[in-house]
Amino acid sequence: QPKRLDWDRWIMMGLIGFSVGIVGFLLHQFIDLISDTKWSYSTKYLQQGLGVAWIFSLGYSLIFLIPATALVVWYRPSAGGSGIPELIGFLNGTIIRHIFNIRTMVVKFVSCVFSVGSGMPVGPEGPMIHLGGLIGAGLSQFKSDSLGINPNYFQRFRNSEDRRNFISAGAAAGVSSAFGAPVGGLLFSMEEVSSFWNMKLSWQTFFCCMISTFTTDLFNSAFKGFQYQGYFGLFRAETNIMFQVDSNLETNILTFIPTAVLGILGGVLGALFTFLNLKIARMRRKILSEIQSENIKKFLRMLEPCVILILTVTVSVLLPAAFGCTDYQCNGNSDVPLNDRKECLTVEQDAFRPPRTEDTVKRYTCPEGAVWNSGEYSVNNKSYNQAATLFFVTGEQAIKHLFSNGTHKEFDVTVLIVVLVFYYLLACWAAGTAISSGLVVPMLFIGGLYGRIIGQAMVDWFGVHVPIEEPYWAWIDPGAMALIGAASFFGGVSRLTMSLTVIMVEITNDISFLLPIMSAVMISKWVGDFITHPLYHSLLEFKCIPFLDSEPVVYSEGKKLLNLELFSAADVMTTPVEVVKPCENIGRVCDLLLRTTHGGFPVVKDTSSGKVMHGIITRLELCMLMQNQEIFQDSPEIAEDVFKKEEVSKLDYQTIHVDRLIKSKAVYSKIRKLREDQCMSSKYIDLNSYLNRSCVTLPHTFSLHRTYIIFRTLGLRHLPVVDEQNHVVGIITRKDLMGFRLEEKLHNKPISSNRHLNTPKETEA
Amino acid sequence: QPKRLDWDRWIMMGLIGFSVGIVGFLLHQFIDLISDTKWSYSTKYLQQGLGVAWIFSLGYSLIFLIPATALVVWYRPSAGGSGIPELIGFLNGTIIRHIFNIRTMVVKFVSCVFSVGSGMPVGPEGPMIHLGGLIGAGLSQFKSDSLGINPNYFQRFRNSEDRRNFISAGAAAGVSSAFGAPVGGLLFSMEEVSSFWNMKLSWQTFFCCMISTFTTDLFNSAFKGFQYQGYFGLFRAETNIMFQVDSNLETNILTFIPTAVLGILGGVLGALFTFLNLKIARMRRKILSEIQSENIKKFLRMLEPCVILILTVTVSVLLPAAFGCTDYQCNGNSDVPLNDRKECLTVEQDAFRPPRTEDTVKRYTCPEGAVWNSGEYSVNNKSYNQAATLFFVTGEQAIKHLFSNGTHKEFDVTVLIVVLVFYYLLACWAAGTAISSGLVVPMLFIGGLYGRIIGQAMVDWFGVHVPIEEPYWAWIDPGAMALIGAASFFGGVSRLTMSLTVIMVEITNDISFLLPIMSAVMISKWVGDFITHPLYHSLLEFKCIPFLDSEPVVYSEGKKLLNLELFSAADVMTTPVEVVKPCENIGRVCDLLLRTTHGGFPVVKDTSSGKVMHGIITRLELCMLMQNQEIFQDSPEIAEDVFKKEEVSKLDYQTIHVDRLIKSKAVYSKIRKLREDQCMSSKYIDLNSYLNRSCVTLPHTFSLHRTYIIFRTLGLRHLPVVDEQNHVVGIITRKDLMGFRLEEKLHNKPISSNRHLNTPKETEA
Repeated sequence: QPKRLDWDRWIMMGLIGFSVGIVGFLLHQFIDLISDTKWSYSTKYLQQGLGVAWIFSLGYSLIFLIPATALVVWYRPSAGGSGIPELIGFLNGTIIRHIFNIRTMVVKFVSCVFSVGSGMPVGPEGPMIHLGGLIGAGLSQFKSDSLGINPNYFQRFRNSEDRRNFISAGAAAGVSSAFGAPVGGLLFSMEEVSSFWNMKLSWQTFFCCMISTFTTDLFNSAFKGFQYQGYFGLFRAETNIMFQVDSNLETNILTFIPTAVLGILGGVLGALFTFLNLKIARMRRKILSEIQSENIKKFLRMLEPCVILILTVTVSVLLPAAFGCTDYQCNGNSDVPLNDRKECLTVEQDAFRPPRTEDTVKRYTCPEGAVWNSGEYSVNNKSYNQAATLFFVTGEQAIKHLFSNGTHKEFDVTVLIVVLVFYYLLACWAAGTAISSGLVVPMLFIGGLYGRIIGQAMVDWFGVHVPIEEPYWAWIDPGAMALIGAASFFGGVSRLTMSLTVIMVEITNDISFLLPIMSAVMISKWVGDFITHPLYHSLLEFKCIPFLDSEPVVYSEGKKLLNLELFSAADVMTTPVEVVKPCENIGRVCDLLLRTTHGGFPVVKDTSSGKVMHGIITRLELCMLMQNQEIFQDSPEIAEDVFKKEEVSKLDYQTIHVDRLIKSKAVYSKIRKLREDQCMSSKYIDLNSYLNRSCVTLPHTFSLHRTYIIFRTLGLRHLPVVDEQNHVVGIITRKDLMGFRLEEKLHNKPISSNRHLNTPKETEA
Repeated sequence: QPKRLDWDRWIMMGLIGFSVGIVGFLLHQFIDLISDTKWSYSTKYLQQGLGVAWIFSLGYSLIFLIPATALVVWYRPSAGGSGIPELIGFLNGTIIRHIFNIRTMVVKFVSCVFSVGSGMPVGPEGPMIHLGGLIGAGLSQFKSDSLGINPNYFQRFRNSEDRRNFISAGAAAGVSSAFGAPVGGLLFSMEEVSSFWNMKLSWQTFFCCMISTFTTDLFNSAFKGFQYQGYFGLFRAETNIMFQVDSNLETNILTFIPTAVLGILGGVLGALFTFLNLKIARMRRKILSEIQSENIKKFLRMLEPCVILILTVTVSVLLPAAFGCTDYQCNGNSDVPLNDRKECLTVEQDAFRPPRTEDTVKRYTCPEGAVWNSGEYSVNNKSYNQAATLFFVTGEQAIKHLFSNGTHKEFDVTVLIVVLVFYYLLACWAAGTAISSGLVVPMLFIGGLYGRIIGQAMVDWFGVHVPIEEPYWAWIDPGAMALIGAASFFGGVSRLTMSLTVIMVEITNDISFLLPIMSAVMISKWVGDFITHPLYHSLLEFKCIPFLDSEPVVYSEGKKLLNLELFSAADVMTTPVEVVKPCENIGRVCDLLLRTTHGGFPVVKDTSSGKVMHGIITRLELCMLMQNQEIFQDSPEIAEDVFKKEEVSKLDYQTIHVDRLIKSKAVYSKIRKLREDQCMSSKYIDLNSYLNRSCVTLPHTFSLHRTYIIFRTLGLRHLPVVDEQNHVVGIITRKDLMGFRLEEKLHNKPISSNRHLNTPKETEA
């Protein structure tokens, strides 16, 4: 196993980045294709009546949504949801079945394209992150049981550390590609997805993210819904920046007052969102568990997104009709009386940008209107529908409207509130149904909505301030507040800090609001943390994925934190331990493998002072050894000359070291046969060449806090506990250190003898 | 010792951020004050002749430089240089004297203000980072031996982990304040400065950086050289963004060709810079070591920056005279013939920004010229000096000129090359002299220069392309290339990746060039790493600060990497080990403390199977215990009832657990006295209540690679090595794991018996 193959790792990172970039490009283009068609035809049919538009919209969307959910429900349930909690769990050290399977990948891709394209209140970013992780795992391991591929070259990457690194990088590349945010992607993977990180990994991930963003941007630069637009290779801001904010507003110290309000709102609403989402998930699980028939269950799972879609289409097509039309109007430029200037929706941004009409507002059913020139300005009597501008478009377009600066009069507070209520509930319900879906677009939309409400209210109270006339007050802009609101809600739900800040800056291409965004994110994190867990961690718990936090948090009965320094390793270890001898009887090994489910067994050696810890051997290694009868020997003696022995070691490392059993049934039936076989009870196996002697052990008096830290920091799976004479007295595994297990075990324990607290912090830098 | 005092940590982080912000503001304003005065008077005297300007410039600068260097040389040598290598070493676990002292802080501040203000080719960023770390240490520990302050409240932060975290955060806040780059600061601390990091720390640092940037920006918004300018609280881009780039150039795929060239150049020139800098440092050390007299040595140290200053002033005042004047000229707007339009130096940026005159170019000795109106355009015959525009200004202003977009004809390639050669050499020499100085401004300047040379050459070959007419080719802009060049040189010297990218984006307020910047940084890192170490790590080696990288890199004689999996812990451990008994004789303890210099002693207990490992006690703890004769006992017996014993333990944890000895001379003289004292040889001390029983030990057969990883990951200081019966057979310390020591020890070793490689990676996630 070569040691520092750096160049091939860099190349692999580049390949992963490129592939993720291509997938991101395809995802983007397919979604564009589907949703552009939907909205352009809907707009057309709208002129023939609301009913026609509703029927078309619904029918068209269902054509895509039904396969999207059917694939997930019937074919690959593991492709549902965003996949981020599973990814986090996997990178923390839990093995989760099926998440890195090529079929999962295909289903995920198709389901995501169809459900986002159909207009569900979900976004493509979560699945893109999972797809990135999948590509990272698939390309680096290049082994597929489904496809039967297994070339030898990639053997070098087939160890848990490399696989983990490539998956982290792939997930980062997924974020980079989805948002066009390479640094944000890197930070997201570091802050949220990965549990283990080092600097070399961040350099390689940096490269991977760069390539991924580059690839996506390059191809997106020339296509829209797969139609060639020219400009191949020109990275235009309008195509490559998701929510280009073209302002030169300057922050003011007073900006931090509404920012604090938005931060608090973000924390509260974000926590509420998490709470509701989990509530719905529990209800769903409860209802489904009461149904006996598998088919009805699956049918209900499929029905759910369809119901949400019907509601969404109804709201987006019919609700705007409840609101009237709004005339185009104009502000600022105080030498012309306000009612004489009807030609623009935006205010003057600076000397070079005169007031202009925002032409992307939705006319809906409003009269078309005409334009005529009147001296220097052109005047019109056009009108548009406010609710349709937010609802009768894709989520991304709606967010662009919310973020746009200088559009002080584009939306009324009432409209915004109505849209917020509907969207909040629909998005909260949609997240968790049996489609492949992400939450980022909904989060930005919701945050943008309440941010804009606050901004709009401030404009109503304090009036419109045009940057060129009153730079000091120009920050009172609903678009700017929407941006801060979006950051705060994103922060309140996910509790990200630095990655979120960088992502917000990268998707808006505007760093003048960096400090308010940071403050809002920080405040919403505090408020949210005070109320409940972040969404992904709640989902981890909900999905019963054991996750070890980087520091132990254990509450005693009275909601008080337990000081784990007061307990020792002996308090949580599992005992007695099944151990094996360096030269063990085949019958006993087989018996052990079949009787227990432990993942590893300490190997103990007989010495004058009893059986001392000698090494550890994993279940997989034992299983693989059992497949090779030729290495069995007749006597329990260990060959004296260890050196000579090893040279004739009959199986090399690669053969016995596997990630998981390929044909586990065959393997276990063979082991079962071995156990039955009478002559095997006199055969032995010499484990000396195969056991891992570099196994960390801890004395039983060791402080529990430090035990946890060591276990978590080193990413261990089994930690044998020994006494002063190095006898194995217990073993600690991941399960023993889970919060609830610790609570259980510790509540009835007296505080151990290890209670004088002179155990310094483990990192004595 | 309370466990999870999070709120007070957050508040402390805020306080540190605020203080660093204030210091950053003061630093900025003082430097502005000094240098503005210098340049305005120099410009005035220039009209009276070059000689007068030269004399004034030199005299004025020397007034400031001499105290700057004198303070460092005579009063606090530890305040010299940037302080970053020392900070990195400290956070890696090495104790370095004097770096967190309040006097160091004052000297650092004054020396930095004076030397940057005087116009040396250095920047204030490095010292600002050290000042940040100092404030982090000072505020959180709130204990000063110099000032005799030591309140009890801060006891809770006085452990190595918290101190380390606060220092990391302070350093990050220093970067944030110096560059106005909060996220960049956080990432800088994470990527370069700190060796230990966790997510909670990054959230707190995020907050700290935010407050720091906010504070600096807030006060800077209203003052310039301490003069109140109005607009308090308005965060204007021109004051708060260091090098505001106001472009809307779009990247093109072809941009990556010159970017790759710049990346390679950055790597090569960066490595050369490091190499030259170290060469000069070695020469300086050699020359000084040959001089006997301390005073002459110090005088020479003082003389050195003065010589550099004389050269710098000469170059900056006299060199521009060697170049002639350049007429203002204009490009683009093709309907007017080129020679009719002399009114602007810039090209049209977009429809809203007509060609305008860059009015910050330096006239130097050129004729003043006049302006007259001619129809639509105003025409002039003004002229300016190209070299003076780069040299006869502060470094920051020069960088602004280099980065400015649309100024295709502002500089000629010849001028740029001449400036590059002079500045490169001067900056390389100046870094390392006895002043407090940083390297960022020089790095950006040098990188900007060669970037602009490439850009200018491209403009000369391919012609001027105006964004509004040819958006596809508009990226051929010397300013944009200068920006990429600056990033590449910064990367080539420091080998930072993500933090550098974010810093570049934050200081220019322009993310459209994110991908080219990332590529340039990545390529220059590869090229640089291929040639030599990064500057800070070379300096660590030069300053003999033992630094443990996160992974061991050991070369065998033939430049081949050694696989440390082939060796075991026993191969590098120090043996024999001085051990103490749980109840030890006072005479022996004192003897041990005086005879050896070890930092920690394993405590062994007699059992049936020999002396087994029981715990560890540090030198400091033993020293403190020795100061308290009342706890000595007459017999070597250990009180049987450990519980009871502990309740009457006579000294509490805080008393014996100290960071360092306050009055080490008194302590040791007391210990010496104890050793002499005959009656002490029959006294004993019971260490059971004081020793640390949660001490990680490893078996002697443990793989060396994993030993290193565990030592480094857990940040240990002493790692006792035991045999199978838990007898202490050796001890491993930081020194034993340093690269050169490993090489020494391993070259003559046979490959150990631990050579079958079935030791899986330590993080089995």
